[in-house]
Amino acid sequence: MSKSPSPHSDRLSRATASRLSLYLRCLEAWHREGVARFSSGDLARELGITDAQVRKDLAQLGNLGQRGIGYTTIDLTVEIRRVLGIDRTWRAAMVGIGNLARALLRYDGFQAHGFEVVALYDASPDKIGEIIEGKTIYDFAMLEDQLLVQPIELAIVTVPGPAAQAVADRLVNAGVKGILNFAPVMLKLPVRVQLVTVDFTIQLEQLAFRVQTGDDDHRLSDAYPIV
Amino acid sequence: MSKSPSPHSDRLSRATASRLSLYLRCLEAWHREGVARFSSGDLARELGITDAQVRKDLAQLGNLGQRGIGYTTIDLTVEIRRVLGIDRTWRAAMVGIGNLARALLRYDGFQAHGFEVVALYDASPDKIGEIIEGKTIYDFAMLEDQLLVQPIELAIVTVPGPAAQAVADRLVNAGVKGILNFAPVMLKLPVRVQLVTVDFTIQLEQLAFRVQTGDDDHRLSDAYPIV
Repeated sequence: MSKSPSPHSDRLSRATASRLSLYLRCLEAWHREGVARFSSGDLARELGITDAQVRKDLAQLGNLGQRGIGYTTIDLTVEIRRVLGIDRTWRAAMVGIGNLARALLRYDGFQAHGFEVVALYDASPDKIGEIIEGKTIYDFAMLEDQLLVQPIELAIVTVPGPAAQAVADRLVNAGVKGILNFAPVMLKLPVRVQLVTVDFTIQLEQLAFRVQTGDDDHRLSDAYPIV
Repeated sequence: MSKSPSPHSDRLSRATASRLSLYLRCLEAWHREGVARFSSGDLARELGITDAQVRKDLAQLGNLGQRGIGYTTIDLTVEIRRVLGIDRTWRAAMVGIGNLARALLRYDGFQAHGFEVVALYDASPDKIGEIIEGKTIYDFAMLEDQLLVQPIELAIVTVPGPAAQAVADRLVNAGVKGILNFAPVMLKLPVRVQLVTVDFTIQLEQLAFRVQTGDDDHRLSDAYPIV
């Protein structure tokens, strides 16, 4: 496998990047099952997308496949992680420590994919000082001071909707570069700050729409509407 | 506003249906703020997508806009809800009652959008019989018997990954038509059963990718990667 940077990695479209996340989920499952090699067709069948699409996406990562042999699971895993930028650790803060935050803190996937929640914040005196999963909940009033000493790049916002914009504004001012927002509001951020919003209602609406229209032509990749 | 069914409603693409969910979020916010009328341009600016795209999407709902006047917030809200199939109540079961389920049960959006969680299930003797948000947790062993008496269409799966496929199989056999899956696994379901998976790791990976590539051309609608 080539160790040089893929020449096109900074030009990947968001659609491609989203599919790479899906490929990575497959590869991780195969790795656990001991599948060392696979063809683009294997990945295409597993996700229900075309072989041509898989080959086109993987071609953008460089010449990783070998004719007649296919791809090596571990090599492609490493390369996708590198291209997505998760071959390093991303330090994240979490703001608003209710049930959702507690569920996310116990979620295996984050740490395994290079996301380390290094600071928890809440504004409620009842919660400040509490320790969850080995991490202390700090007073949100201390955010700016703490981030000066211990910078972070990402924030996970799990506060109620009405509080979310003010929290986001303070995170932006404190230098956060990207926000994963779970509050059911449309945050407005400067263009330099990236935003991904998880809106459970939209997901459930889309499920209802598909059930109502009786769409039976779905592909496994459609089950991950980010793509 | 026309009360007749939109002739094209069953042919809406998933991309259009996803944007309709976003439009609906905007309209609901405007309704709360007392905005009674708006133009396609207002919606386009709010979401950062093109006016042409908004007009094309809304044209598929019928002739709801009036030249020089624009759209009526409440009328379009009603119509989008009808087309998405959320002008009715969807009965849902939730399986696996941990922190995530508790957060979702307290999430305002579901009930407000016609999703009523009518049954909670867990397999843990510690939890069976507990009442959360006025709902009793039942033994998952009783699923099939209860759904015979009280059918539901949707299920929200919040069990750990290793348990998810077996839970999904039983839900499918019990007649569930759509599953919102929060377990970090790729469920395999018969094509007649719709699936939407919420994978927090994918969302966080996509955020990291955008921060790493320094994409500063993002649109508000991009913050909802379902579109």
